[in-house]
Amino acid sequence: MSPKNKPLVVIQDQENRYTPDWDSLDSRPLPSWYDDAKFGIFIHWGVFSVPSFGSEWFWINWKGSKNPKYVDFMKRNYPPGFTYPDFGPMFTAEFFEPQQWAEILKSSGAKYVVLTSKHHEGYTLWPSKYSFNWNAMDVGPKRDLVGDLANAIRKHTDLKFGLYHSLYEWFHPLYLQDKENDWGTQDFVKSKTMPELYEIVNKYKPSVIWSDGDWETNDKYWNSTDFIAWLYNDSPVKQEIVVNDRWGRGTTCKHGDFYTCTDHFNPGTLQLHKWENCLTIDRQSWGFRRNAVLSDYNSTPDLLKEMATTISCGGNMLLNVGPTHYGQIPPIYEERLRQIGQWLNINGEAIFGSRPWIYQNDTRTPDIWYTKGKGSKELLLSDPVYAIVLQWPETGVIELTVPTATASTQVTFLGYPGEIKWGVASPGIQVRFPSKSKVSNDWAWVLRLDNLVY
Amino acid sequence: MSPKNKPLVVIQDQENRYTPDWDSLDSRPLPSWYDDAKFGIFIHWGVFSVPSFGSEWFWINWKGSKNPKYVDFMKRNYPPGFTYPDFGPMFTAEFFEPQQWAEILKSSGAKYVVLTSKHHEGYTLWPSKYSFNWNAMDVGPKRDLVGDLANAIRKHTDLKFGLYHSLYEWFHPLYLQDKENDWGTQDFVKSKTMPELYEIVNKYKPSVIWSDGDWETNDKYWNSTDFIAWLYNDSPVKQEIVVNDRWGRGTTCKHGDFYTCTDHFNPGTLQLHKWENCLTIDRQSWGFRRNAVLSDYNSTPDLLKEMATTISCGGNMLLNVGPTHYGQIPPIYEERLRQIGQWLNINGEAIFGSRPWIYQNDTRTPDIWYTKGKGSKELLLSDPVYAIVLQWPETGVIELTVPTATASTQVTFLGYPGEIKWGVASPGIQVRFPSKSKVSNDWAWVLRLDNLVY
Amino acid sequence: MSPKNKPLVVIQDQENRYTPDWDSLDSRPLPSWYDDAKFGIFIHWGVFSVPSFGSEWFWINWKGSKNPKYVDFMKRNYPPGFTYPDFGPMFTAEFFEPQQWAEILKSSGAKYVVLTSKHHEGYTLWPSKYSFNWNAMDVGPKRDLVGDLANAIRKHTDLKFGLYHSLYEWFHPLYLQDKENDWGTQDFVKSKTMPELYEIVNKYKPSVIWSDGDWETNDKYWNSTDFIAWLYNDSPVKQEIVVNDRWGRGTTCKHGDFYTCTDHFNPGTLQLHKWENCLTIDRQSWGFRRNAVLSDYNSTPDLLKEMATTISCGGNMLLNVGPTHYGQIPPIYEERLRQIGQWLNINGEAIFGSRPWIYQNDTRTPDIWYTKGKGSKELLLSDPVYAIVLQWPETGVIELTVPTATASTQVTFLGYPGEIKWGVASPGIQVRFPSKSKVSNDWAWVLRLDNLVY
Amino acid sequence: MSPKNKPLVVIQDQENRYTPDWDSLDSRPLPSWYDDAKFGIFIHWGVFSVPSFGSEWFWINWKGSKNPKYVDFMKRNYPPGFTYPDFGPMFTAEFFEPQQWAEILKSSGAKYVVLTSKHHEGYTLWPSKYSFNWNAMDVGPKRDLVGDLANAIRKHTDLKFGLYHSLYEWFHPLYLQDKENDWGTQDFVKSKTMPELYEIVNKYKPSVIWSDGDWETNDKYWNSTDFIAWLYNDSPVKQEIVVNDRWGRGTTCKHGDFYTCTDHFNPGTLQLHKWENCLTIDRQSWGFRRNAVLSDYNSTPDLLKEMATTISCGGNMLLNVGPTHYGQIPPIYEERLRQIGQWLNINGEAIFGSRPWIYQNDTRTPDIWYTKGKGSKELLLSDPVYAIVLQWPETGVIELTVPTATASTQVTFLGYPGEIKWGVASPGIQVRFPSKSKVSNDWAWVLRLDNLVY
Repeated sequence: MSPKNKPLVVIQDQENRYTPDWDSLDSRPLPSWYDDAKFGIFIHWGVFSVPSFGSEWFWINWKGSKNPKYVDFMKRNYPPGFTYPDFGPMFTAEFFEPQQWAEILKSSGAKYVVLTSKHHEGYTLWPSKYSFNWNAMDVGPKRDLVGDLANAIRKHTDLKFGLYHSLYEWFHPLYLQDKENDWGTQDFVKSKTMPELYEIVNKYKPSVIWSDGDWETNDKYWNSTDFIAWLYNDSPVKQEIVVNDRWGRGTTCKHGDFYTCTDHFNPGTLQLHKWENCLTIDRQSWGFRRNAVLSDYNSTPDLLKEMATTISCGGNMLLNVGPTHYGQIPPIYEERLRQIGQWLNINGEAIFGSRPWIYQNDTRTPDIWYTKGKGSKELLLSDPVYAIVLQWPETGVIELTVPTATASTQVTFLGYPGEIKWGVASPGIQVRFPSKSKVSNDWAWVLRLDNLVY
Repeated sequence: MSPKNKPLVVIQDQENRYTPDWDSLDSRPLPSWYDDAKFGIFIHWGVFSVPSFGSEWFWINWKGSKNPKYVDFMKRNYPPGFTYPDFGPMFTAEFFEPQQWAEILKSSGAKYVVLTSKHHEGYTLWPSKYSFNWNAMDVGPKRDLVGDLANAIRKHTDLKFGLYHSLYEWFHPLYLQDKENDWGTQDFVKSKTMPELYEIVNKYKPSVIWSDGDWETNDKYWNSTDFIAWLYNDSPVKQEIVVNDRWGRGTTCKHGDFYTCTDHFNPGTLQLHKWENCLTIDRQSWGFRRNAVLSDYNSTPDLLKEMATTISCGGNMLLNVGPTHYGQIPPIYEERLRQIGQWLNINGEAIFGSRPWIYQNDTRTPDIWYTKGKGSKELLLSDPVYAIVLQWPETGVIELTVPTATASTQVTFLGYPGEIKWGVASPGIQVRFPSKSKVSNDWAWVLRLDNLVY
Repeated sequence: MSPKNKPLVVIQDQENRYTPDWDSLDSRPLPSWYDDAKFGIFIHWGVFSVPSFGSEWFWINWKGSKNPKYVDFMKRNYPPGFTYPDFGPMFTAEFFEPQQWAEILKSSGAKYVVLTSKHHEGYTLWPSKYSFNWNAMDVGPKRDLVGDLANAIRKHTDLKFGLYHSLYEWFHPLYLQDKENDWGTQDFVKSKTMPELYEIVNKYKPSVIWSDGDWETNDKYWNSTDFIAWLYNDSPVKQEIVVNDRWGRGTTCKHGDFYTCTDHFNPGTLQLHKWENCLTIDRQSWGFRRNAVLSDYNSTPDLLKEMATTISCGGNMLLNVGPTHYGQIPPIYEERLRQIGQWLNINGEAIFGSRPWIYQNDTRTPDIWYTKGKGSKELLLSDPVYAIVLQWPETGVIELTVPTATASTQVTFLGYPGEIKWGVASPGIQVRFPSKSKVSNDWAWVLRLDNLVY
Repeated sequence: MSPKNKPLVVIQDQENRYTPDWDSLDSRPLPSWYDDAKFGIFIHWGVFSVPSFGSEWFWINWKGSKNPKYVDFMKRNYPPGFTYPDFGPMFTAEFFEPQQWAEILKSSGAKYVVLTSKHHEGYTLWPSKYSFNWNAMDVGPKRDLVGDLANAIRKHTDLKFGLYHSLYEWFHPLYLQDKENDWGTQDFVKSKTMPELYEIVNKYKPSVIWSDGDWETNDKYWNSTDFIAWLYNDSPVKQEIVVNDRWGRGTTCKHGDFYTCTDHFNPGTLQLHKWENCLTIDRQSWGFRRNAVLSDYNSTPDLLKEMATTISCGGNMLLNVGPTHYGQIPPIYEERLRQIGQWLNINGEAIFGSRPWIYQNDTRTPDIWYTKGKGSKELLLSDPVYAIVLQWPETGVIELTVPTATASTQVTFLGYPGEIKWGVASPGIQVRFPSKSKVSNDWAWVLRLDNLVY
């Protein structure tokens, strides 16, 4: 059974428009591209990429919670009065070549990209009218990073382009004032964060709005439903836009086109609503950290495991990279992306366009995750089932205990041209793996099972 | 006859409030402190003090009109992509000691100070809620320059503290958008410039609002009359606030508590409305210029001449200094200020609280300017008249051709304790100057004439 | 047959001292640690790590040959008058933790480290008495990088510590003057480069002096033989010091303890004299390049192939890493080092202490390289021979065509605990590889052959 | 009686050369231009002009004696590891226009200029071969400041050009090593400070070498007499060179062409040997201080008093200005210089080419200083005597108690075209001053007395 993204009835007003309330908004069907895409790349880039220390929460850790690690770092390396905005001019991006990024991102096999148009620091990566002198055109790179990447992605690849946007800004005085007024005023929402959201949608026509920074107050304050209703009814991307679930306290994991719940959300079980697992290559940070060491980075097998478990349970995987302040995707990230891409080149049919199968993972043999092939509207016998195997079987033979074979069942080892020996087991089937020297990678392997009994 | 600042009838509504229209606002009587003060110091300080080149119009000259002098300066000294906001962090103000400034300003004899709280660059010298990361707390000095100077002035001197504020900002995108909309929108006014004005009045309680940058459109766009009505009716400074005349195209020299007309306005004749001559010590710039040479600076006699001509014709003189980006008033400015103060120590009674006399200058003997002594409500014989003499008479004897002596007339040479020889001339009186070696300065001299015929 | 490093007779004077001429110096026996060590890490770090662009030859490419790529880079990113020394203060090294480096370097399995104490830029990584204000203590890191790394390496590992040193400096005015004098003066040698060499030897007691930058003139100018004679006779490291062959035009590949000939020297055949293959992970540069992409980096199999070919032919391999200006070994380098270390953990006996065998590579089967086991002074039957196999055999069976088996011959697959099936072939022996899923790595494999016929 | 600069006999060897010992060197006659010149401008410019705080002894005060004022300044304004050489790139000199300087310097009436070619910091203002990357061509201004100023002075004025040079350098490691060796080694002298001195003489042909920084050890260590002998015998400036007296402990006030004794030396009595009073406009510093206030600067009358007292007693006055790091002579200095120039335009004949008279100052009337007119080889009646009067006489009549009038005596008031009334007094003469309004300045006045009795 596929996760049900939406109720059966689309709730609209007489003019066939969504109304700015969750009942109506939640009734909109999920644009199909998103569920088919499965795998996207998240990019965290901003002024935090200048200190490149600790994490992209640098500013608040330093000046908000006064975390000694950050306070100390600043004390050791900068003059006493140095402020976070002083980092702005150092965000140079001199090596940023959007076409090169597009090529690297495409090489990963991902189908969409989500860039932090504005993180909690408030710095906009595009020349916003509402962020004078605190945006990438006025200070730092002196170019429209959002626009330049959007263009390159669209010109050189078929990836969808989406934008992350933080509703709140840690230190924006109008936000802090609204907060002090117990959310009785909306000066910040009306003069800053909402105008920006409309601006990026109109200007860059993103396929995803990945909202964040909503949690300190509810969606009433944020005017979220008004914005989403506009997105669905009137925006230039009304057909294909998808939004996540971070639109005010209480909305997360409850409203929106797809649920993100928490960062690194990966429940391990089938979810009833479309969801996304956003996760990082650097385990400790979304932004680039200059002092990260090799052991901080997830390995390619680690990441393929995340992919298998996520896709099997109906999620999408949004894998994060953190470029440097000078505009480069560090080679260690590039290596991970290209290796995932190599794997998907062979095994992509188990991922893209797939749907959750009746089983998500094998109940007896560990580290086997299942998906169901694409294109089937109903559960037809002809839909292939994929078993993603994360451990090479010690004995060379693996037991898939949940599929039931029929006379016409066929077993294929993706990327291995020869025939595969298999037999019926009880329960399930057992499959002899080919010689490992003949297979294409060292990380994870996919068996395709055609014509199973359902 | 004194200049008439206001019509005879104060126009208010039933609740004795000024209404937001010029007829009503212009009917408010001028708070007396301002006309009595006569002499103030203007301070131009901001991010333009970092390049300190050309003038405080650096940004627009460089990026707006692309003046080759500025374009070249940047090309020779900065990397290609350098932007004006990149100067922000270099505005260090490390030597700014407000108490020291207060002492220097006071030493000039001035009675009020007007600081550029925000110039056309949009950078606020106070931590404005409406100028996130483009203000003196977030970027550069990391302190509230407006507050710190206000406090020092008030604690250590009896000077009034006023604020210059530019309505427009050359490069603010919302301003440019409103302009492109042919002023049909007011996004900039409502979210930026007006909130700021209310903020500084409420926060710093200035005695002067010296508005500027109004000229590209009319006062309707700016909501000027609403603001001034609030100032007069409800603001915390409603008793003593005075405003100038730059509130929208067409208002200059026509509305406001005092008229500034053009920069360096000094008409040389009596004006019917209270006015102010704002002028610079550095002839070429309001902001500090690092490459100014001695001949660019007005000498003390030049400045005393400006003072005499201005005060005689009913104006106030607002003399500008340009501090450095590191927070110091350069000694050449300090020297001018202290010398004017020395002169005023002896001759101040001809200036402070004075009123224009029936004659402004002597019609036959050049370089003599008259004022009338303080405190007289009507033209009484007992009011002294002052003749400010800008040239030491070659012969030692000077002819004042417009005063008419009586039997009880007395002539005094300010700062000279001895008796002065004088006699009746036709017309006027002639006065023998004392030995120059006995007088207090080398720049300008004042004769006090008591008991003249009117 | 092992390469002969030295002539048979040690040539010394009556006091048993080497004399400052090549005949005598070349007669010194090579300290055994060096030939046993086989594998070292080269570190290129300096002010060139700040621009991190193009290569460590940044300065000369920019200002010497005026290579447009460099000229352009500077024009685009720096102010017009920017000089190379201006990069000095930006060499911050704030994340440099010598103990962390020591751990990473050790993890590679390498036995020695060679750090650029001074590259052609002239900047010394130690506080040299002869490089006032152009050294790591005075400008940039503000610490003794050489001393700090030496201490950490010695305290936390058993690696030998060596120093690279450039004789010439591209832009040193005394060097340029000596050159203009057609080497008739030695002001530079006497006041700069030689005092420095003595200084680093006395201060840091390096086990290797890796000389460079000698090529513009001969060893007479450099006083090289005097220095080496001192090293061998009197220096605190006279027992274990080894020097390379770059001591003046004509010395390379001809004099010195080991020959480097050219960078990346890897002749593919047995050499008569001890040699070293210095090579880079980043194919295009010794110094870190910020804009290097993944494809610029040699892969682990690439590097193991270099190792096998080098060691088989009697060379040592000195593998270069380029740390960042902030003091970190980038993870992509770390990954390569740790993977080589993993391989050496299992296969190190084929490398460390080995000697060239009678054959260097298999003459019929490609990609097989041989070494001979450690410790044997002569060719004894009991010495094991190692076949390093760089390609997994398609058929699972490999033919080693040059070894001749005996009745007592044994074949072991390093890292595979089971028995290996093999048989005599003509010529040589054939070996069946184990299941690939049972072996430890995916890059290269070693067969140990005991008791062969010689 | 004129001060005797030299013994009666010139001591030379058989080839008419000075020998490198003080007896011989001290016997050289003083080149006449120097005694005639009387007034020079000293310029202190260097890396210390960047912090521009405290004084030009910034580095040693901060890092040597750890003066809390300096330590604090650095702590408040710079990152922890900031070093003095880090200031180097900030010494930008972008506004330095040598021709403009030449015009300003000339306007003061001075006859020579002495520039700090190298101060104790060791930074050379010319591209020295012996100060790689610590000179004005490599770091900071990127131009030859010494050469550029020398050329401009010579092209646009008739001033002589001289160079200050510090023998020692506070932190040069070779100097510190020689010192630690109790001056038993001379590595610093031989490889650094002496080569530099020869370099600047050969390259810039200065008329003055103003040596400094000699005091920690004697002239033997410095090889001073060798250098001076070369200067006198063989250098390209052997005819006109003059040197001061700071060539090693014990030489000051004892050897050299002119004595400086201590900074600000102004003994108030006639000296037997030619001397120089070097003094500052900013009382607290030779280098520019950004936070100096007006009261720190000597006024023009203060400086004219210094001039009168110095010249009367046989000294020269070397008046110091401190340019900014951006290459400008601040207007407050320029004002002093131009005012002195105005004074000298009228009164210069009392100064230039003058000789001490038999009396230096008036013994009864205070603040009167005497000089004797130029050109007289012996004491002839026809030599005019000048009385420089620093206080305008209260009564208008001044008593000069030491001159004795004759029948042919004439009294002239310089700059006053009219006749002066005077008479014989006992003792001396009394002179009636003209009306102050008729004289040219307000600072000091000169009476010329012709045909006195001697």
